Amino acid sequence: MYTPKPEHKFSFGLWTVGSVGRDPFGEPVRRALSPVEIVHLLAEVGAWGVNFHDNDLIPIDATPAERDQIVHNFKYALAETGIVVPMATTNLFSDPAFRDGAFTSNDPRVRAYALHKTMHAIDLGVELGVGVYVFWGGREGAETDAAKDPVTAIKRTREAMNFLCAYVIDKGYNLKFALEAKPNEPRGDIYNATTGNMLAFIATLDHPEMVGVNPEVAHEHMAGLNFTHAVAQALEAGKLFHIDLNDQAFGRYDQDFRFGAHNIKSAFFLVKLLEDYGYGGSRHFDAHAYRTADLDDVKAFATGCIRTYLILKDKAAQFNADPEIQALLAEITADDGSLDGFKGAYSPQKAAALKGHTFDRVALGQRGQPYERLDQLTVELLLGVR
Amino acid sequence: MYTPKPEHKFSFGLWTVGSVGRDPFGEPVRRALSPVEIVHLLAEVGAWGVNFHDNDLIPIDATPAERDQIVHNFKYALAETGIVVPMATTNLFSDPAFRDGAFTSNDPRVRAYALHKTMHAIDLGVELGVGVYVFWGGREGAETDAAKDPVTAIKRTREAMNFLCAYVIDKGYNLKFALEAKPNEPRGDIYNATTGNMLAFIATLDHPEMVGVNPEVAHEHMAGLNFTHAVAQALEAGKLFHIDLNDQAFGRYDQDFRFGAHNIKSAFFLVKLLEDYGYGGSRHFDAHAYRTADLDDVKAFATGCIRTYLILKDKAAQFNADPEIQALLAEITADDGSLDGFKGAYSPQKAAALKGHTFDRVALGQRGQPYERLDQLTVELLLGVR
Amino acid sequence: MYTPKPEHKFSFGLWTVGSVGRDPFGEPVRRALSPVEIVHLLAEVGAWGVNFHDNDLIPIDATPAERDQIVHNFKYALAETGIVVPMATTNLFSDPAFRDGAFTSNDPRVRAYALHKTMHAIDLGVELGVGVYVFWGGREGAETDAAKDPVTAIKRTREAMNFLCAYVIDKGYNLKFALEAKPNEPRGDIYNATTGNMLAFIATLDHPEMVGVNPEVAHEHMAGLNFTHAVAQALEAGKLFHIDLNDQAFGRYDQDFRFGAHNIKSAFFLVKLLEDYGYGGSRHFDAHAYRTADLDDVKAFATGCIRTYLILKDKAAQFNADPEIQALLAEITADDGSLDGFKGAYSPQKAAALKGHTFDRVALGQRGQPYERLDQLTVELLLGVR
Amino acid sequence: MYTPKPEHKFSFGLWTVGSVGRDPFGEPVRRALSPVEIVHLLAEVGAWGVNFHDNDLIPIDATPAERDQIVHNFKYALAETGIVVPMATTNLFSDPAFRDGAFTSNDPRVRAYALHKTMHAIDLGVELGVGVYVFWGGREGAETDAAKDPVTAIKRTREAMNFLCAYVIDKGYNLKFALEAKPNEPRGDIYNATTGNMLAFIATLDHPEMVGVNPEVAHEHMAGLNFTHAVAQALEAGKLFHIDLNDQAFGRYDQDFRFGAHNIKSAFFLVKLLEDYGYGGSRHFDAHAYRTADLDDVKAFATGCIRTYLILKDKAAQFNADPEIQALLAEITADDGSLDGFKGAYSPQKAAALKGHTFDRVALGQRGQPYERLDQLTVELLLGVR
Repeated sequence: MYTPKPEHKFSFGLWTVGSVGRDPFGEPVRRALSPVEIVHLLAEVGAWGVNFHDNDLIPIDATPAERDQIVHNFKYALAETGIVVPMATTNLFSDPAFRDGAFTSNDPRVRAYALHKTMHAIDLGVELGVGVYVFWGGREGAETDAAKDPVTAIKRTREAMNFLCAYVIDKGYNLKFALEAKPNEPRGDIYNATTGNMLAFIATLDHPEMVGVNPEVAHEHMAGLNFTHAVAQALEAGKLFHIDLNDQAFGRYDQDFRFGAHNIKSAFFLVKLLEDYGYGGSRHFDAHAYRTADLDDVKAFATGCIRTYLILKDKAAQFNADPEIQALLAEITADDGSLDGFKGAYSPQKAAALKGHTFDRVALGQRGQPYERLDQLTVELLLGVR
Repeated sequence: MYTPKPEHKFSFGLWTVGSVGRDPFGEPVRRALSPVEIVHLLAEVGAWGVNFHDNDLIPIDATPAERDQIVHNFKYALAETGIVVPMATTNLFSDPAFRDGAFTSNDPRVRAYALHKTMHAIDLGVELGVGVYVFWGGREGAETDAAKDPVTAIKRTREAMNFLCAYVIDKGYNLKFALEAKPNEPRGDIYNATTGNMLAFIATLDHPEMVGVNPEVAHEHMAGLNFTHAVAQALEAGKLFHIDLNDQAFGRYDQDFRFGAHNIKSAFFLVKLLEDYGYGGSRHFDAHAYRTADLDDVKAFATGCIRTYLILKDKAAQFNADPEIQALLAEITADDGSLDGFKGAYSPQKAAALKGHTFDRVALGQRGQPYERLDQLTVELLLGVR
Repeated sequence: MYTPKPEHKFSFGLWTVGSVGRDPFGEPVRRALSPVEIVHLLAEVGAWGVNFHDNDLIPIDATPAERDQIVHNFKYALAETGIVVPMATTNLFSDPAFRDGAFTSNDPRVRAYALHKTMHAIDLGVELGVGVYVFWGGREGAETDAAKDPVTAIKRTREAMNFLCAYVIDKGYNLKFALEAKPNEPRGDIYNATTGNMLAFIATLDHPEMVGVNPEVAHEHMAGLNFTHAVAQALEAGKLFHIDLNDQAFGRYDQDFRFGAHNIKSAFFLVKLLEDYGYGGSRHFDAHAYRTADLDDVKAFATGCIRTYLILKDKAAQFNADPEIQALLAEITADDGSLDGFKGAYSPQKAAALKGHTFDRVALGQRGQPYERLDQLTVELLLGVR
Repeated sequence: MYTPKPEHKFSFGLWTVGSVGRDPFGEPVRRALSPVEIVHLLAEVGAWGVNFHDNDLIPIDATPAERDQIVHNFKYALAETGIVVPMATTNLFSDPAFRDGAFTSNDPRVRAYALHKTMHAIDLGVELGVGVYVFWGGREGAETDAAKDPVTAIKRTREAMNFLCAYVIDKGYNLKFALEAKPNEPRGDIYNATTGNMLAFIATLDHPEMVGVNPEVAHEHMAGLNFTHAVAQALEAGKLFHIDLNDQAFGRYDQDFRFGAHNIKSAFFLVKLLEDYGYGGSRHFDAHAYRTADLDDVKAFATGCIRTYLILKDKAAQFNADPEIQALLAEITADDGSLDGFKGAYSPQKAAALKGHTFDRVALGQRGQPYERLDQLTVELLLGVR
């Protein structure tokens, strides 16, 4: 019943099921899987796509010959399994060169190197057929605002994004960019901290039409924000080009838990939003298994991400079909049409009429709404007891 | 030395020094001051301006005659003291009518009433000479996403803002709008949770040029976000139309503490940004005294907001003049010009050359930056020991 | 199936279903219910008990005759409905007298008045048959540590608690005390911020045996802490004398949502802990309905608290009976007994043998645990799909 | 003026200035320094002591001969520099063996190995002269409460601590234990999440008198808690055996910033508490330099920790000597002695008199306190402008 199909567009990054379980306080606990092994693992759990950072696939110090051999092997595994590559991205955070950022580094050589690295990585992504290119600027931030002017940082980021948009257009690539916000970690503060900041930043670019966002559950949750609301804004603006699904407690380190593992209810509203509005992109799981996991448990983790999404999708359909819930929603949003004359676009007449209208403020304040009842029905639907 | 002058543009809301000290767990502790009394109090502490919600000045159930008398008295107090009214706003949150929001209420009558009330409040603000009109949608949110569709909420907010922009244009008012974000409280989640979301929302309006933001320290801090970064984005985009200065611990209820009372260092970087970039608007203190305060202590609170701003402004000038700090900054951002050819706007030739350039990645990674040293100098400058 | 019974011990405070929906930004939206009306409402939703602050029942300025009449009416309603009064507490936070705290106030007269008020409130509680007396020191804190020495605050609190314990002993009351921690709100910081701090404080009292804790979900969640772990510590130490059930997002203002309304999974582990360990006290719901609610929705709120608890109790039994889950748990904690000689109490011989034993560290590190699988089974059990 | 002296007892861990700048998203940026090099670096910046985890000094797979050589070299460096070793601790978190915890692991072999490793590490610490032995159970937690019973976890931790206390007593070591709390990271949740939980846990041990706490600024700040209050509780209970000084924003990943780098004011109140109450233990800096730092900047970081402490110590003395501040404090805590009869230990007569006393509640509520004024004076003292 909860079997993944290609049309569900479930994807994972090489770095997700491939995580070796290293963290700030501990050594790796699992052996590194090769990209080819990961592709087969993903096929086994029913995924549709695989995504990668340039250096997940090609080591940063690989020779051209090594690069070509790796790409060849990877393509062969893709062909064997039918797995596609919908998205790629650049690793601009692991190497010591990026210790003070990439596009916002105070060192002009690092900024140039970041562009150089990204153009090559875009070429690689395009070679593998990606349609979306993600930017996560994990090092684009500061521990002290004494060291970097935040206005300068915005200007540097814009210059880089405009350059790279022009590159894609120049090359004739059929590629969209998706920018990913995060408030902090590994930097003390990261610029463009939330999806909202990213959307605002995009509106200032030379080619805003080719740039959207890649919101991530964990990143918005780190700031204690309602992720579904952030996604709704992106979706409504036609800017939801990709999404990173995982889970995370509010106000914590970057946990990247299995989708739905922390808060079932917020995961439900997210899935419902995506499905109700017909989001057509990847359902990308940017998570990793607990450090306690062995390889079998890594597979259980990946299967769990998929199953929880499908279960919640089914719950969303139930919600939309539940007569009691739908009757409540109709009552909640009831409109007798008596004020229709005040709706819609502005006109001086409408404004004058509206200003002159007498409202029974006290009566308006006495009307309650059955939101406790509705929310309790939702909880019981989620718990499977209705 | 730290004496406020009109050119500093220090302003307070009627509701700030006028707070009676009620909170969710306690009764009022101070008597209500009349608007006239507050204007005199503000004159006494050296403020330049006073701001208000419509119902701070005019009770929601005042008769037209009462309204006119109140406005007359208020204008007289302004004239007596030289205090100006730079900003006004609408109270769309206290009355039970707005228990489920104003522009995003599920009740179409409440949405109409909110427009009605705001148009009247704009008229009042314009009558008193305001140039900026603030919108804080404190009730525009939800406790459960089952009850309100977040996409619908965005559309309703846009419809209201477009209507009100058209009203201002139609009336020929010389007025800008400033939208104020908040993540939560009093609603479980509030739409357009951060300044970033607001900036992105503004870009989708019919008249984006007349709409900017009114970021508030406490609101961004509630989400654990770097407020200076949010302000920098607004400033860089020409959208910083107003600002609410106060202080607040991260991840807490809305504390609205005296400016600089919680985090001296982040207040410093904020003042430095505003002064370095010549922000020309009000320095508005949207804070209130502790509930322990009596009227004398309320004045100490107001004086403290002003003094801390001026002390930090002076520190910012010291920072900019400190030879050791400036030498470090020059070293940090040093550029020998060798990569100038890769800078600036895109060209295919530049891209090709940059892709073909060989970078010494390892050498780039070995260069550290003296940010600990710089930050420690900053801390010592703040502590007054250099 | 999810019908409350007296043996479930579900209780509510007068202030919970009686909340008028006032908040820091808004006026009351519901009329005040009398204590008698609340008792009947609670009977209607199937509650077993009702709890109160002294001034929930008796206004702070009531005459002795008014007091007696109110108590008489309240007892009559209790008798009519069969509702019991398991717990009472003192309101030491609403009145302006307590603006700087009660037992920790800097004013010695306020400290004396707080003792006076509490002794009278204890008498009232005992008269109504309570077995547990709760202390929530909502004002026992500070906005600035300049104003109150935190060591002095601890000593003042201890002096007050020792005095009141002695009072109860002296009077021969059969009463236990339960101390309730909260990190902040309405004070900037509240002393004894977490349940852990309270447990540690209790160990320093003259009569620790009669004092336990009253942990509250929302209060521990405000600090982003795992509530189940805090309750486990209290339970294991024999100190769980009462519990406040509700729900709340991490790092937010005090939300007091319906039990299970925010995080279903953490509510599940809490219920499972309480039921597995046979907690025998009240299941007290310290929550209130959304401000959008009308009276019918307040009832839906109360019914929802109870239903969610009972559903989760049933899920906990399912978890304990699920063969696949139980098999995993057996595997996870498997012990072949080979190291039994190193277990239990210390002896020099055991220590020497253990120090001399050779461990295969690498092999130990290679063993993973199926925690992803187990957690996914738990999530699916909660979702009702297994 | 801010020169460190041995009597200040400033110490650093080998892992602090020795950090290579690895994080979850990035590779090392600085070369590893040998313990001997670190000792000389610490001497250069004026530290008094150096602390270590067993494996900071002795690699986990060192042979006995290697161990002896390392210890010999280390002792020689200590003798050369005069640096002492006040504290040691066990690394029970880096090795894959501890992926599910050490004393609370579900694997009985791991629990035994953790005791084995700790006894050897205690011997090493004692050999180097330490008087305090710290326990930080970084892996003692869970990502899902399905996998580990939190009550069982407490019992396992107690069994281990009782065993190790008995070991120290048996060996005749002159050693105290200091337990360090942390709410999360690297585990989803860590048991005994706050200093309060640790203090409460200690009270349940067989030898509570030899066990205290090692509170860390960053760990309490991760939970958004007032660190000074937590330290005050430990101090007042005679349980402050050690302290970890650093800095950190609330509700973030574990940042371990330079002391005072985030919040100057909270650092001030902490230093003031320690100095006012004559805390006699190490001032241990458990922090590391930004990842941007090179070796020179690491030294600036270490020097900065020390200087900021000494500056704040000097500010605390200024605060205690400031006539205006002290006059305010006298006013705030004024006591005319009229209620002295109600103070002190309980007696039935005192209780009766107090119950019968008439308080002027309204008058008590009208008295405000000059806390805004006092706090502003404190801020100005910190800013060096008074």
